[in-house]
Amino acid sequence: MTDARDKGLTLNPKYDDHGLITAVVTDVDSGEVLMVAHMNAQALALTVETGLAHFWSRSRQALWKKGETSGNMLAVRDIRIDCDQDAVWVKAVPAGPTCHTGARSCFFRRVGRDGLSLVD
Amino acid sequence: MTDARDKGLTLNPKYDDHGLITAVVTDVDSGEVLMVAHMNAQALALTVETGLAHFWSRSRQALWKKGETSGNMLAVRDIRIDCDQDAVWVKAVPAGPTCHTGARSCFFRRVGRDGLSLVD
Repeated sequence: MTDARDKGLTLNPKYDDHGLITAVVTDVDSGEVLMVAHMNAQALALTVETGLAHFWSRSRQALWKKGETSGNMLAVRDIRIDCDQDAVWVKAVPAGPTCHTGARSCFFRRVGRDGLSLVD
Repeated sequence: MTDARDKGLTLNPKYDDHGLITAVVTDVDSGEVLMVAHMNAQALALTVETGLAHFWSRSRQALWKKGETSGNMLAVRDIRIDCDQDAVWVKAVPAGPTCHTGARSCFFRRVGRDGLSLVD
């Protein structure tokens, strides 16, 4: 890790071998983690420019404007980047359920010593 | 994605080619995202069993008990897993600054149209 990347004010994302960084989306009001996905440079730029969360779909290998088909877009209120610039934290207002299962958050199951259990 | 992995109550993490899943840690009180790191199966098991966050350090290629050297451990209050089981959300009580830079959170810079700016 370099001091410039870790502490400086120049955006210099550390993309992985696939050209991606991790993106964590939280609900700006509840603080709940809604989803974790990935962004390439184009998705990050579009997210900053449009105020709507864009990702790179690893399964479809395509740019993914969240909510383009479901309508459940994520209106971005704040974007932060971490020390080594390989992850961003997006605070957003979700237009509807974020998860493809219909759950508000993709994190609808608790991990315990005895396996998983539903939350909410 | 399979229905069993996406909606069922069996823990079946979808590890990547390096045997890792993504781990997002938030402050259980403030909701702030403190850090994003990775876990292998051993790190996840130790986190569940001990109640202290463990990760896999990609840079050191070693198991990493967060705070082992700095003392800034993360006491786990809740662990959740996402729909496709390739990411966990850990809610924790941090013993001190989480970031190696000394910041409370690794996400201490905002991404804007004109680059980065410090928050807090």
